[in-house]
Amino acid sequence: MKSFDFYSPTHFVFGKDRENEVGKYVKENGGSKVMLVYGGKSAKSSGLLDRIEASLKETGIDYIEWGGIKPNPVSTPVYEGIEQGRKEGIDFMLAVGGGSVIDTAKAIAMGIPYDGDFWDFFTGKDPEGALPIGVVLTIAAAGSEGSPDAVITNDKTLDKNGAGGDCIRPKFSILNPALTQTLPPYQTACGISDIISHAFERYFTNTPDVEVTDRLLEGLVKSVIHEGKRVMEDPDNYEARANIMWAGMVVHNNIMGVGRDQDWNSHHLEHVLSALYDVAHGAGLAVIMPSWLEYCATHGGETRIAQMATRIFGCEMDFADPKRTALEGVKAYRAFLKEIGMPLTFAEIGAKKEDIPKLVEMNHIGDGVTGGFIGLDKQAHFDIYEIAARE
Amino acid sequence: MKSFDFYSPTHFVFGKDRENEVGKYVKENGGSKVMLVYGGKSAKSSGLLDRIEASLKETGIDYIEWGGIKPNPVSTPVYEGIEQGRKEGIDFMLAVGGGSVIDTAKAIAMGIPYDGDFWDFFTGKDPEGALPIGVVLTIAAAGSEGSPDAVITNDKTLDKNGAGGDCIRPKFSILNPALTQTLPPYQTACGISDIISHAFERYFTNTPDVEVTDRLLEGLVKSVIHEGKRVMEDPDNYEARANIMWAGMVVHNNIMGVGRDQDWNSHHLEHVLSALYDVAHGAGLAVIMPSWLEYCATHGGETRIAQMATRIFGCEMDFADPKRTALEGVKAYRAFLKEIGMPLTFAEIGAKKEDIPKLVEMNHIGDGVTGGFIGLDKQAHFDIYEIAARE
Repeated sequence: MKSFDFYSPTHFVFGKDRENEVGKYVKENGGSKVMLVYGGKSAKSSGLLDRIEASLKETGIDYIEWGGIKPNPVSTPVYEGIEQGRKEGIDFMLAVGGGSVIDTAKAIAMGIPYDGDFWDFFTGKDPEGALPIGVVLTIAAAGSEGSPDAVITNDKTLDKNGAGGDCIRPKFSILNPALTQTLPPYQTACGISDIISHAFERYFTNTPDVEVTDRLLEGLVKSVIHEGKRVMEDPDNYEARANIMWAGMVVHNNIMGVGRDQDWNSHHLEHVLSALYDVAHGAGLAVIMPSWLEYCATHGGETRIAQMATRIFGCEMDFADPKRTALEGVKAYRAFLKEIGMPLTFAEIGAKKEDIPKLVEMNHIGDGVTGGFIGLDKQAHFDIYEIAARE
Repeated sequence: MKSFDFYSPTHFVFGKDRENEVGKYVKENGGSKVMLVYGGKSAKSSGLLDRIEASLKETGIDYIEWGGIKPNPVSTPVYEGIEQGRKEGIDFMLAVGGGSVIDTAKAIAMGIPYDGDFWDFFTGKDPEGALPIGVVLTIAAAGSEGSPDAVITNDKTLDKNGAGGDCIRPKFSILNPALTQTLPPYQTACGISDIISHAFERYFTNTPDVEVTDRLLEGLVKSVIHEGKRVMEDPDNYEARANIMWAGMVVHNNIMGVGRDQDWNSHHLEHVLSALYDVAHGAGLAVIMPSWLEYCATHGGETRIAQMATRIFGCEMDFADPKRTALEGVKAYRAFLKEIGMPLTFAEIGAKKEDIPKLVEMNHIGDGVTGGFIGLDKQAHFDIYEIAARE
């Protein structure tokens, strides 16, 4: 285990109808003029926004609406939000939505008090502070409700970059599983794929002696597979959604990712996919993650992938040929993703084999090697996309 | 899953030598005059206190020493600490030790700003605030370094009671696994027993649909069993100690205990044992927890205990007779406790069968029923102590 710091001061407010308490938490955290960031029309048509605004009004909190944030969030609405927020004297960001809405709110929160271009924070500069952020979560997937991170695509360059710092950890996050019941099955499945990926990106490591976090990550994935199947069979199952929602937070607040190297190659391999084709992040991960695992299983990573195969998917260990066990685990993961309706190939998400050189280029690898579990050079990136593009 | 709030704002600082940074964290949290609470001579003789005091001095922080806190902490040093703390104008409590030292510091922290008797908070009154608390942990066991709780025994009445509130969550906790390497094997094993008990007290529940927290708790116990065996074979194993130390925090900060009823009967059954015989808490739990499980397995709790038996201890499920599987799991847990040198019976801890009526009396059960998994009346308390007193 490596040395680390862990700090997760977000107040999580979990359960049915708890978004009706939002005004109280905004007030506790010093908000008096709120920018209410949200996505599409469903937040309005479902009555959710009305309930939230009623709670704000009741607590005497002023607000402006800032809607229309789209999946795979881009920089333009961030710039506009910063300008508008300054004009209106906004002192609190309230995100009502999933990862895209939360990350947009986080970016605006950093940008408002900053003199320069907010994009600086997405190209390596440490955040200098941010307005306080609150969340009402409507999609269990990104984990941004409990994380110190945000991911935004620059819509001029198509660079999909991340920023991070404790100042963008939400002050509170309200998690009402019932709010996710109206999600279409495909989006629910995308969330499940994203959550499991967040576990795998932590799980696949070369750091020795990480038994506790290993077992926690394995337990998390096993339970999300169990609950994921349940929710696909019965989309109105509040209990399954509650389990998935808590899992999505826990896996990404990093309590089971500390003390070990992590490998986010698969996320990067996917980011350029969703930037180029506007495919849902979780769907892109369903294509990329097993392809990456298949590559790693045949390039030195077989032992740890075999551990995943046996401990998570109950595969029988082939001691004479661990690679076989590892590949059996990858097959089992693909079968699960297929069962919940996720795509597994380029063809299924409209990605094109002939675009592979472009995708590799967009990854800005140069002559280096990326990732920590199995280092990937340019050729490896090609090979993984080739696996994903296989019919 | 039930509705819940989860808030764990402690900054965890984990790794070798990190206690040398303590001055910085005290300062960040507004401390200028510190009461440095610690236990026996080893903190001094090992040089740990010197290093901590050097870091405080370097940061310009004044302090007084407040040593001599004993295991199973009692109220007298709390009263004395409150008086001394007020006299000295203490504004920050720094606990250097394990659960007993931390809980004493927490009690003093609540008592200094309070007009009345600090014991009020241990008999039902909500805390009204507390001085900020920091921790340098030297024993992995109690989990108090990340919890909002404290347990103190009133040395007049022998009541061992708890208090709780977010104001006594430590501002920071420094976890250096190397500091636990000097612990005698018996105390190391007591810590392991305590940590696994903290998982079981959350695990055994009647709340349905708690698959995510179930799997996390199972993973935690499996890994602590694994690392527990390693550390008993090789006490200098930093890595095993690091895993156990993080597990001890994670299991008790409640991130995997939320959304479900918990059952703390076994802890209460043990508290009176350690109050009467001054046995180490973890050793008392090694006697009580399997006895309680055995009782529950034969009084309606067999299904969930069989789940523990199969998922944690790898027992084969006997579908025709789940009770058999459950009892096999209890047997497996006893075998593990024995392997790490823990006592399993009254005789081994010097407890007396003829004291059972007194122990039951000390539990203040009256005609009621305690606990949530399997409700226990007075007779059940007798029966469980009888199991523990069996030769």
